[in-house]
Amino acid sequence: MMRLRNYACGQWVEGSGNFTTLYNAVTGEPLGETSSQGLDFAAMATYAREVGGPALRRLTFHQRARMLKALALYLTERKEQFYRISSWTGATKTDHWIDIDGGIGTLFAYASRGRREFPDEPFFVDGPVETLSKNGGFVGRHLCVPLEGVAVQINAFNFPVWGMLEKLSTSLLAGVPAIVKPATVTSYLTEAVFRAMVESRILPEGSIQLIVGGAGDLLDHLTCQDAVAFTGSAWTGQLLKKTPAMLEHNVRYNQEADSLNFSMLGPDATPGSEEFDLFVKEVAREMTVKAGQKCTAIRRTFVPRTLADDVVKALSKRLGGVTVGDPTNEGVRMGPLAGRSQVKEVGKALDALKAGAEIAFGGGDAFEVVGANRDAGAFFPITLLYNDRPFDRTQAHDVEAFGPVNTVMPYDTVDEAIALAKLGRGSLVGSLFTADDRVARDVALGTAAYHGRLMLANRHSAKESTGHGSPLPHLVHGGPGRAGGGEEMGGVRGVLHYMQRTAIQGSPTTVAAVTREWTRGAAERKDRVHPFRKHFEELEVGESWTTHRRTVTEADITNFAGISGDYFYAHVDDIAARESIFERRVAHGYFVVSAAAGLFVDPAPGPVLANYGLEGLRFVKPVYAGDTLQVRLTCKSKAAKDDREDQIPQGVVAWDVEVSNQDGEAVALYTVLTLVKRLYPLDGPPAASNGAGEQAGDGVAAPAVTVTEQPGNAPARMT
Amino acid sequence: MMRLRNYACGQWVEGSGNFTTLYNAVTGEPLGETSSQGLDFAAMATYAREVGGPALRRLTFHQRARMLKALALYLTERKEQFYRISSWTGATKTDHWIDIDGGIGTLFAYASRGRREFPDEPFFVDGPVETLSKNGGFVGRHLCVPLEGVAVQINAFNFPVWGMLEKLSTSLLAGVPAIVKPATVTSYLTEAVFRAMVESRILPEGSIQLIVGGAGDLLDHLTCQDAVAFTGSAWTGQLLKKTPAMLEHNVRYNQEADSLNFSMLGPDATPGSEEFDLFVKEVAREMTVKAGQKCTAIRRTFVPRTLADDVVKALSKRLGGVTVGDPTNEGVRMGPLAGRSQVKEVGKALDALKAGAEIAFGGGDAFEVVGANRDAGAFFPITLLYNDRPFDRTQAHDVEAFGPVNTVMPYDTVDEAIALAKLGRGSLVGSLFTADDRVARDVALGTAAYHGRLMLANRHSAKESTGHGSPLPHLVHGGPGRAGGGEEMGGVRGVLHYMQRTAIQGSPTTVAAVTREWTRGAAERKDRVHPFRKHFEELEVGESWTTHRRTVTEADITNFAGISGDYFYAHVDDIAARESIFERRVAHGYFVVSAAAGLFVDPAPGPVLANYGLEGLRFVKPVYAGDTLQVRLTCKSKAAKDDREDQIPQGVVAWDVEVSNQDGEAVALYTVLTLVKRLYPLDGPPAASNGAGEQAGDGVAAPAVTVTEQPGNAPARMT
Repeated sequence: MMRLRNYACGQWVEGSGNFTTLYNAVTGEPLGETSSQGLDFAAMATYAREVGGPALRRLTFHQRARMLKALALYLTERKEQFYRISSWTGATKTDHWIDIDGGIGTLFAYASRGRREFPDEPFFVDGPVETLSKNGGFVGRHLCVPLEGVAVQINAFNFPVWGMLEKLSTSLLAGVPAIVKPATVTSYLTEAVFRAMVESRILPEGSIQLIVGGAGDLLDHLTCQDAVAFTGSAWTGQLLKKTPAMLEHNVRYNQEADSLNFSMLGPDATPGSEEFDLFVKEVAREMTVKAGQKCTAIRRTFVPRTLADDVVKALSKRLGGVTVGDPTNEGVRMGPLAGRSQVKEVGKALDALKAGAEIAFGGGDAFEVVGANRDAGAFFPITLLYNDRPFDRTQAHDVEAFGPVNTVMPYDTVDEAIALAKLGRGSLVGSLFTADDRVARDVALGTAAYHGRLMLANRHSAKESTGHGSPLPHLVHGGPGRAGGGEEMGGVRGVLHYMQRTAIQGSPTTVAAVTREWTRGAAERKDRVHPFRKHFEELEVGESWTTHRRTVTEADITNFAGISGDYFYAHVDDIAARESIFERRVAHGYFVVSAAAGLFVDPAPGPVLANYGLEGLRFVKPVYAGDTLQVRLTCKSKAAKDDREDQIPQGVVAWDVEVSNQDGEAVALYTVLTLVKRLYPLDGPPAASNGAGEQAGDGVAAPAVTVTEQPGNAPARMT
Repeated sequence: MMRLRNYACGQWVEGSGNFTTLYNAVTGEPLGETSSQGLDFAAMATYAREVGGPALRRLTFHQRARMLKALALYLTERKEQFYRISSWTGATKTDHWIDIDGGIGTLFAYASRGRREFPDEPFFVDGPVETLSKNGGFVGRHLCVPLEGVAVQINAFNFPVWGMLEKLSTSLLAGVPAIVKPATVTSYLTEAVFRAMVESRILPEGSIQLIVGGAGDLLDHLTCQDAVAFTGSAWTGQLLKKTPAMLEHNVRYNQEADSLNFSMLGPDATPGSEEFDLFVKEVAREMTVKAGQKCTAIRRTFVPRTLADDVVKALSKRLGGVTVGDPTNEGVRMGPLAGRSQVKEVGKALDALKAGAEIAFGGGDAFEVVGANRDAGAFFPITLLYNDRPFDRTQAHDVEAFGPVNTVMPYDTVDEAIALAKLGRGSLVGSLFTADDRVARDVALGTAAYHGRLMLANRHSAKESTGHGSPLPHLVHGGPGRAGGGEEMGGVRGVLHYMQRTAIQGSPTTVAAVTREWTRGAAERKDRVHPFRKHFEELEVGESWTTHRRTVTEADITNFAGISGDYFYAHVDDIAARESIFERRVAHGYFVVSAAAGLFVDPAPGPVLANYGLEGLRFVKPVYAGDTLQVRLTCKSKAAKDDREDQIPQGVVAWDVEVSNQDGEAVALYTVLTLVKRLYPLDGPPAASNGAGEQAGDGVAAPAVTVTEQPGNAPARMT
């Protein structure tokens, strides 16, 4: 019989002792066996900390992001092979997409965000500079650095691939090595994908390890730099949380547990309305996709009391059209549960639910299964319950049947529906189907405190909606209370779970030296070469240029009104301007920024390709005829862009612009964004290609890494 | 004997059973007694949830912020009275400032941030719109709403006032009622300040309650909407964390524990350098302020081995000049510890430290105490230790003496110093004194993962520095591992600890209706009145205006080059422009925004006072001669400004600007910020003064609250 192997300390290792048999969910036949006994869990943690961590921390976010992209591409090419194994878990084609394509998609999403939203540095700067003193000589800023430990990621059986990749996307991008522990029942699929990742040799050695079986005493060896992310049952979660070592060292812990998610039909959405149809379709879909084995699946369905019969009828009809059976069979829309033990558990939960509700559809043992033996496979009947008195009979708010089971409950008022939603005591997601945005607003604000995500569906969003059940990398996934109290993904947020946020205090120059982002008040460096004559690599953060001056005349104001067409009274009406907050005619703010560009632009063709934007413009003092303007332009930050075949290599350079008057007072402050040519492609000559830093006087120190190495192109990293 | 009273369910209640005696730390005389026995803790939690929570949630952030300001002003007037009581705890004048003025300052800081960084709504919108689909018909956004439970705030004995006010600042601003439980030994000071808050009648009924004594079974009654914030010993923290109800309901828990903070002298900072002197001064100050009873105090001091003698000598000299005694005595610079039991505990810890270090200064029993009886009061000698082998003798990295005790340790290389810092296994703060910003960068990046805050001090920041030991509302306060693993304050971040972040998904129109912020893609409303003719109250979020058109000519480009002085080749050099990424001469981006203003500005005097800024400008498509521009201006969000006597009432209105060409393609996108007159002051006519909303078709629903009530001016709220 096939034996799964663990990947520990850079080696594939077979467990020992008692092996657990793994079964095909469709046929009930044994697939193989697995054990993690005999592994040295403490050594695995140490290996991650000492080998994987330092290697990942040497890379910048952009490098780590390119690594995720390479990994996503590598896995994409092998999808068909994963689909084949996935169908042993009972998954249909749609289910494969959610688990496998969804997981790979999360890698792609974080690969993209990693380059857009993080700096080309190993650390992240969170939020603006905080001025801590009157004259600005002492400032603060928040720096996020990777934890120096290991991320232990314990996943649930229902998403053997997405569960792993979703967590790895954020921890690898953060620069933290991981030990992945999938639920045993479907671990053969996780192992297959994990094996491909190892074979790709894309990740640095020590970045990832795998436990197929129990986690042994792993948690007892965790310290203050480690983190645990758990998805699974609340019961297991409670056990993990009170592990003495985790309590003692305040180990970071994030949890996502099953919850009793709701879907609600708005009072306006009567039969025949688009929202009614969308609702019925979505509830049926959520009940049957993955055979209802999703922590985001709809378990509680709230409908206006007057529409309850219509809903039950429409739902029953739709559910009646769902073919159950061997998912590899054409036409089968729902497969079995993940295993026979799941069938037993869901059956027990259904019994509990039945004490507080009536069967409205299915529920019996005599359901048709196409292309498979109903009793050998882990099949479970689609079951719709109806509970007429949801405030009195509360089983549906307490008991979760982790399968194709859902309870319909009526409400009389929207406030009552909101109260019902809260009886779930914290859920991952709720959804509402209404064309009335006032109802949407009331339900959203009324239920938000108890939910991690709320989908407000109507005819306008339906076509493009990703659906009630889909967590997305853009948005947080998690929920309070019963849902575990954690939060994953959500863009940058999910990456920060694996980083330590540290407030850095000091002089502006010192803080700029640490964060490698120049800010006002920090020391500047001057050069005799105009910065627009320099390529990306030649520019240094903190490099500044002070322009010639220009006196603003009355003719300027008049002419600018003429060319812009902006005849606002404050610029052209002497009478009204005298009574305005400006007290006399004032130059146009847009003239000031235009004249500033006239002062700082270097006209001939050069490395600066375009000014593509502007941020944070503030007109801090009025400019009058007779005032004399001067501009200081300072290189604030730089980020190389990915190379593209149709473009010359380029990067984004942000410039701090300070326009001042004859008294040295600032009149306008902003940041200009430019595209600047790079001398070399990213895999070009490595030496000093990040330019900034080495001669960076006043303490803007050398870069900790260069941007020249692109791990995605260098596949010889892993042992 | 004076008996402290608890404030439970809106009543002052005396405890029963065994009372604990409270002592004057200077004289050892009994001050009074206290007990919380007999309180119905479950009822207190329910009262907060049912009375305080709904009242606070009805207020907007701006209203809550004004409430904090009113509270801060009220307490400021009573400072002298608090100082008098504070000296019974052993506090000197400097110590009063840190605890009392520091606490009130935190209220002021959050009052200010609440109006600057939060919307005039009961909720907070976190981050930008996330586009979730190709055509933008389905978007997401993160909404943060107040938890609907109670904040239990358990504070340490060393900051009876700051500890309470620091936590209340964030929870009250978030809209969450609190139960405050100070450490018993100094609870008489907390009670005095709390009593003043109740007397002020500024807070809505049910907002705050007080327990002077043990917390009984309070934690057993917490649920998924409650939160616990604890400051104190790691040992107590572990107990709290594993309270079964908290584990079961995943109650939010934030912890700040004592830690072994370091201060480091840079290799460059030799005797005679400014940094050397600053370092000695700071270490001595941190050892003696609050008699060393600060969780941020310096416990471990790392110095270059070659400078160790100099440091010990200079420190000993400085410490020798610190007069210990009755803090009300002129000239006394350090008072006693908070109580006799603290003296015992610190003594025990010092004994443990002595096993791994030698006494370099003080430490004996024979120290002078001015104006008080050394043995009756809780006096402890200032003690400096020296440990020559800090990697072998590790007591200083393990044992905390929570008093005026500190161990000096030598290092040979900066890497070694970084390794020593990490041996503390997680601290609240570290500091470094160096003039070399490369060392600052190395130490900051090297130690950040183990620290919540790092102060990088030098001669430039010294004059304005707030010091090693001061947590600030702007910056996060907390630290990993031993420091508790939590995070408080840090501006907006600390407020979000008391809120649930929920991802809202739907059509742009629906999401705008919930968040009350218009975003691109959401439905607009048109009116025949130009929006610049409307006052703040009359403008509706989502209201839009489409301008007339203007064709860009070659003359415009030429004239704009002339008036701006911007002769960049892409605009004026036909030869170079043809080879540029634009392929021919292109209009100036600044011309486009100037012409856009010409299109959307309404010239005559009106409610719009000024355009004071611009955000997020992107030139998304080039504009050529012959292109015809048109602008759509949409009211994106509104926020009333505080009324000032020297100003007409006004508010900030943000406008979304989309400049498009003859093909309807966007060429420039940005947000314009304007100051707009209000019809009424904030306490003016209440009816419909928030204007936006009621007629807001397309689902931008009515505001949940109006901005017309100003709690700070309405002192008749509390029972």
